[in-house]
Amino acid sequence: MPSAISVITLLTDFGDRDYFVASMKGVILGINPQARIVDLSHAITPHQVEEAAYLIKASYQYFPDGTVHMAVVDPGVGSARRPLLVTTSRHFFLAPDNGLLSYIFQEETGIEVRQIENKQYRLDSEGATFDGRDLFAPAAAWLTKGQSPGSYGKLIRDYVKLPLAEPEWQGSALAGHIIYVDRFGNLISNLTPFHVKDVQGRTRRSDVSIRIGGVTIDGLLRNYSQGSADAPHALINSNGQVEVFIKEGSAAETLNISRGERITLA
Amino acid sequence: MPSAISVITLLTDFGDRDYFVASMKGVILGINPQARIVDLSHAITPHQVEEAAYLIKASYQYFPDGTVHMAVVDPGVGSARRPLLVTTSRHFFLAPDNGLLSYIFQEETGIEVRQIENKQYRLDSEGATFDGRDLFAPAAAWLTKGQSPGSYGKLIRDYVKLPLAEPEWQGSALAGHIIYVDRFGNLISNLTPFHVKDVQGRTRRSDVSIRIGGVTIDGLLRNYSQGSADAPHALINSNGQVEVFIKEGSAAETLNISRGERITLA
Amino acid sequence: MPSAISVITLLTDFGDRDYFVASMKGVILGINPQARIVDLSHAITPHQVEEAAYLIKASYQYFPDGTVHMAVVDPGVGSARRPLLVTTSRHFFLAPDNGLLSYIFQEETGIEVRQIENKQYRLDSEGATFDGRDLFAPAAAWLTKGQSPGSYGKLIRDYVKLPLAEPEWQGSALAGHIIYVDRFGNLISNLTPFHVKDVQGRTRRSDVSIRIGGVTIDGLLRNYSQGSADAPHALINSNGQVEVFIKEGSAAETLNISRGERITLA
Repeated sequence: MPSAISVITLLTDFGDRDYFVASMKGVILGINPQARIVDLSHAITPHQVEEAAYLIKASYQYFPDGTVHMAVVDPGVGSARRPLLVTTSRHFFLAPDNGLLSYIFQEETGIEVRQIENKQYRLDSEGATFDGRDLFAPAAAWLTKGQSPGSYGKLIRDYVKLPLAEPEWQGSALAGHIIYVDRFGNLISNLTPFHVKDVQGRTRRSDVSIRIGGVTIDGLLRNYSQGSADAPHALINSNGQVEVFIKEGSAAETLNISRGERITLA
Repeated sequence: MPSAISVITLLTDFGDRDYFVASMKGVILGINPQARIVDLSHAITPHQVEEAAYLIKASYQYFPDGTVHMAVVDPGVGSARRPLLVTTSRHFFLAPDNGLLSYIFQEETGIEVRQIENKQYRLDSEGATFDGRDLFAPAAAWLTKGQSPGSYGKLIRDYVKLPLAEPEWQGSALAGHIIYVDRFGNLISNLTPFHVKDVQGRTRRSDVSIRIGGVTIDGLLRNYSQGSADAPHALINSNGQVEVFIKEGSAAETLNISRGERITLA
Repeated sequence: MPSAISVITLLTDFGDRDYFVASMKGVILGINPQARIVDLSHAITPHQVEEAAYLIKASYQYFPDGTVHMAVVDPGVGSARRPLLVTTSRHFFLAPDNGLLSYIFQEETGIEVRQIENKQYRLDSEGATFDGRDLFAPAAAWLTKGQSPGSYGKLIRDYVKLPLAEPEWQGSALAGHIIYVDRFGNLISNLTPFHVKDVQGRTRRSDVSIRIGGVTIDGLLRNYSQGSADAPHALINSNGQVEVFIKEGSAAETLNISRGERITLA
């Protein structure tokens, strides 16, 4: 894998008002001044590993080959939970072993998962509370300097995976759930065009109806413009997932729905 | 126009907590790893094109020659509204054809406006809901790689311009309005030193008085320090516009004023 | 001091929704397109110099040699307060003369403090309200282009220092205070491992107890994982300071405590 480009993405629940994120960037630039650092997000709800897992899934594939994705949402910082280095055919991922990379494990093939053990890639510091700065940032930066994944630690197989529930048939309807609510209040589900076709095959109708929060939505639109402000609509979004929205409004607020809510396709 | 520098600015209403902005940056860096990406703002009130138009006006001229300004506040994404590439003597601008670039059209001369049609600069994707990532980001990145504006699409003349109301005389007073409220609650108007001189000429007084929200402010100060915390004051701000402020307080909150409010100079 | 790396950090109370930060970045990149700009934070509570002073203290040392730290929390912008350039053995600092760099003055030795007077490093602009863009940004950028500190202005000695209260003995207890509350609601004090040892020496006990907001906490933990969600705990944090936290909760909210609160060690 070429690493001339040296992009490092950062995903945390650290927020953007404290010194946390900048300290990590300082450490990275001290090791590799050429690294291109991109903030994925620092606004993950504190300790919400599932939310972070989805953000990585939704964006990692748009980054160039050799990108190092570093994700630190880590309620167990300083405890025995292991820090991981994951290698795929195109990218690197560094994260605590708490399920944060579950979608990567699900979507990518031929991955290698290592426990980061090499103390040479660690920063000396007084406390054990900031692995983002002291462990993950230098480990990420050294990767972009060409250190081999093998030098980080041994391969492991028993890493943590979140239970990523697949949609299930309930009669002739397929029941999924909302896996992410974005800033516009759009409701993103784990239903895909594949599931839509499946339902169409079973119902022998060319269209589908979506049921969520007591509301029924008929058919899928092509884009937000086709929707209206007075009722929820649905479409296949740009990541290939069924999404419920209200035009220039918030479906989450109007329907009073949050992550985890059931959504069915019939 | 030289493009060795390759600065790309991003202005959206996408917020900073989701995967939207990072996905666009990934696409840009995949095409041009040398691009310097600067966030102009991602905190535009959702769908508020006027707010975004002002932010571009207030900042674009401070960027180096060859900078590519990409602005995506786009309630009509996926609909028939056209994506634009605008070329001025110093900069490039990419935005949907919804008036977002109105101040550029007003302030710059010798501009060329093109409809982006060339599919080669587009990313393939499943949905039609994320032109920021799939259309504008690659189009911006290819510009910094030296692709000519002419290769993007045909020149057009019927692009959308917002109605940018000019201050109007009402007797011997000049009436403008508030065009932006900043994070400090400062009220920025469309009145300029030019208008102040005009009023001084007509009133034959060396000073002016400002009226807004039922309050009268006498004279213009030089800087915030000269103001006081117990009353609103006014000055010519660093962008050359009459601004109403309360020292270390919020004029917007105290006077209960938002964008669009009338302000008169007499 | 080598300046090949050209990292510039930005710390302001400008927020991230307006045009302020982007304008400064545009000015910097216009002077030095190679500068690596890192946002330290723009979410300082407006005009809170003490808060900004702590953020610099907590992060500056993690940046590479030659880094230029630019901090603009500046209630007195445009007034007679002086703009400063401070040189240490490793870094540069630019800030208004209002105490923002107090911790640097306290922690670093052999510093040189200059008043920025050279008009050549200033941008021409219409108002006197945006020194971040017109004075500090170009001054910072020219430093990374190799301009010597001596060319900025004369050395001064009467710069402003905030009163940084040291912990004080009250009987056999050492009383400090909370100097920062982070996004998680963790309470960071000005008590350090040095103070802990001091108290242990005086009490002849191997452990310590912490008292804050009417609550007593027994002993120091090693990391957040050892804490619990139902009571506050304390540890030495990654910056070497005694910190009070509630596991996966907010100590600030639960104890209803903010910056300035007393904390004692016994």
